[in-house]
Amino acid sequence: MPVPESAPPQPIDGPRFDVVGIGNAIVDVLVKAEDDVLHNHGLTKGTMALVDETQAERLYASIGPGLETSGGSAANTMAGIAQLGGRAGFIGRVRDDQLGAIFAHDIRAVGASFQTPAASSGPSTARCLILVTPDAQRTMCTYLGASVGLDPADLDLQMVADAKLLYLEGYLWDSEAAKRAFIAAAELIRAQGGQVALSLSDAFCVERHRDSFQELVDGHVDVLFANEMEIIALYKANSFEEAVDQVRGRCQVAALTRSELGSLVLAGDQSHPIEPFRLGELVDTTGAGDLYAAGFLHAYTRGLNLETCGHLGSLCAGQVVTQLGPRSQGSLRQLAADHLGLSF
Amino acid sequence: MPVPESAPPQPIDGPRFDVVGIGNAIVDVLVKAEDDVLHNHGLTKGTMALVDETQAERLYASIGPGLETSGGSAANTMAGIAQLGGRAGFIGRVRDDQLGAIFAHDIRAVGASFQTPAASSGPSTARCLILVTPDAQRTMCTYLGASVGLDPADLDLQMVADAKLLYLEGYLWDSEAAKRAFIAAAELIRAQGGQVALSLSDAFCVERHRDSFQELVDGHVDVLFANEMEIIALYKANSFEEAVDQVRGRCQVAALTRSELGSLVLAGDQSHPIEPFRLGELVDTTGAGDLYAAGFLHAYTRGLNLETCGHLGSLCAGQVVTQLGPRSQGSLRQLAADHLGLSF
Repeated sequence: MPVPESAPPQPIDGPRFDVVGIGNAIVDVLVKAEDDVLHNHGLTKGTMALVDETQAERLYASIGPGLETSGGSAANTMAGIAQLGGRAGFIGRVRDDQLGAIFAHDIRAVGASFQTPAASSGPSTARCLILVTPDAQRTMCTYLGASVGLDPADLDLQMVADAKLLYLEGYLWDSEAAKRAFIAAAELIRAQGGQVALSLSDAFCVERHRDSFQELVDGHVDVLFANEMEIIALYKANSFEEAVDQVRGRCQVAALTRSELGSLVLAGDQSHPIEPFRLGELVDTTGAGDLYAAGFLHAYTRGLNLETCGHLGSLCAGQVVTQLGPRSQGSLRQLAADHLGLSF
Repeated sequence: MPVPESAPPQPIDGPRFDVVGIGNAIVDVLVKAEDDVLHNHGLTKGTMALVDETQAERLYASIGPGLETSGGSAANTMAGIAQLGGRAGFIGRVRDDQLGAIFAHDIRAVGASFQTPAASSGPSTARCLILVTPDAQRTMCTYLGASVGLDPADLDLQMVADAKLLYLEGYLWDSEAAKRAFIAAAELIRAQGGQVALSLSDAFCVERHRDSFQELVDGHVDVLFANEMEIIALYKANSFEEAVDQVRGRCQVAALTRSELGSLVLAGDQSHPIEPFRLGELVDTTGAGDLYAAGFLHAYTRGLNLETCGHLGSLCAGQVVTQLGPRSQGSLRQLAADHLGLSF
C-alpha cells in the first residue's frame, strides 16, 4: 500500500493488545553441528527448508543431542514484546501433545496471551531442527505438523480486533489455509483502524510466494520486516540498493536488517541507518530477526520515533545472538533501560 | 564391602562396555528463577524433591519459560563417558511419548547404548523441573513417571554382564521395583568379576534410605560417589571429617565432592585431595556431580591412577557448570587433552 506519510502512528487508546501475531507454533530442537552435516544433508546455510515427518525423523536420528525450546518466528516476536512489557497475543496451532504443552507454557510464561485451541487429532506439534554451526549461523529444517492446519475457523477475531497492530510471518504462506486466515485477519484489523506488519521470514519462502508477497506488501502491509536476502529475493533485485529503491513507498515503513551491518529503516523518502549492538560473543543467530521485530514493534506501538524503533530492535537482536535459542533468557526491559534509557 | 587394597583395577579385556548405568530416564526442564520462587513453593535450594504429576503441572504453570534437555543422573554420567570416548550403556525406562523419544535420541546421539524398551502404557516419561537461581544453584522437582516402573524384567542382563563396571544412582531407591532391579544387576556383575559404583544422588534421598544405603555400601559397592551433604547424611556425622572417617575402608574407593573446595578421593588409608577446575563463569551447577562421576569412571575403567581419575572428574564437572544443562555441549575429549594431556 503506497503511502506518502512517514510518521509513525500515535498510540491508540483502547485496544487490549499492542500486537497480535499469527504464525506457526513450533518447538525448536537446537543441535550444534559442523558444516559438513549441512553439506551431507543438502542444506543451505542460513535458510529454512520444509521437511515431512519422515525426513525430520531421519535427520534427527543422524544428528547430535538437542536442546528443546519453544520457537516459531512470530511467536518469538510476541514473546519478546511481552518481555519488554508490551501486551502481546499469539495465534497458532499446536496438537494436544507434550511439545504442544511446552509451547503453550513458554509463551504464556512470559506474559503473552495464547488461546488457540490445541488440535485433538491429526499431525503432532510442529518441530524445527536447527543446526547451529561453529560460525553461530543457524540452518533450519521445519516439520510443520499441526501448525499447518491453522485456518480461518481458528482465528480469534476478537483478539485481532482488540489489537493496535497485527503481525504476520511469511512462513504461513506455505499453508493455503493459514494464508487465508492471515488475509482475513489483516482485512479485519485494517477495517478497525489498526495496522499490519509482515516479516518475509526466509529468502526461499519469498521465492516460493513472490507474487503473492508483492501484492500483500502493496495492498495490506504497513510495516515490512525483511533481511537483505529476502528483500532482494522479493524484487529480484541485483543489489540491496536496488531492492531499497523498489520497496520505498510501497508500505509505510520498511525495516531491513543486514546482520553485522545493522539495519536500515525506510519511511517515505527518509532512510534511517541503524547501528548493530554487539553485547558479547556471537553464539547462535537463531531468533535475531524475530527479536529485531519485537524491539521495533514494541517501540512503534508506543509511538516512539523510527530511529528509536530501530535501536530497540537492534538491541533485542544483539542480545538473543549471545545465547543459544530464539527467545531471550535475559531481561530485555533491563537492557532497554541500560542501553537506551527507555523504561517500559 | 571393606577392602584393604587401594589400587584401582587394571582394565579387563573383553567386556563390551566400560560402564553400564542404571537410573531414572528423565527429561529436564531448566527454568531460570529468583530465590523467592523456591521459597514460595517450599523448596530447599540444591536438593531434589519428588512430586506427583499434579504437583509438577501446578509448579510448571507458575514458573517461567523452560529449556528442555535430556537428563537423569546416571544417564548424564553415561553420556559424559561416551563423549570422552568410553563405551557406555544406559538402562532406564521412558514412555513411548515425545519426551521419551527426545531422551532416547539424545543419549544415543553421543554414542551411548540405550535399548530399554519404552513403555506403551502407564505414566508418561519422567520430567524434572530444575529451577536455576542467580547463584547458579539448581533445585529440582522430579515427577518420576514411567521411570519408576523399571523392574528386573526390564534389565538387559547381557548388557550388565558385558560391562567392566555397573553404575547405580541412589535416586532409584525411591522405587521398590527399581531398587530390586538394581541389586539384581549388582550381584550379577560382581559374580562376573566386574565392579559396582554408586552415587548417593541427594541428601534427602539418603535420609529416606539411610539404612539401605549403608548396607549397600558395605556389601555391594566398590566405588562410592557422594557430595559433602550426602556423606554426612549417610553416617549422621557432625562434620565432613567425621563422615570421611566413617566411610574410609567400607568400599574400595570413595570420591567425595565438595563444590568449590574440589574433591577428596579415599582408598584404603590414602587420601587424595583434588583441586577444582574453574573454566569460566559459573552458570548452572546442574549435572556437576554426574559429570564428575563420568570423568572419574572413564579414567578408572582405563586403569589410570586415582589422582588422574579425580582430576578428570573435576575437569568434566568444571566444564558442565559453565553452561546451562546437565550434559556437556562442548568436547570433553578436547578438554582432557588440553588440560590433562590425556588422549582418549
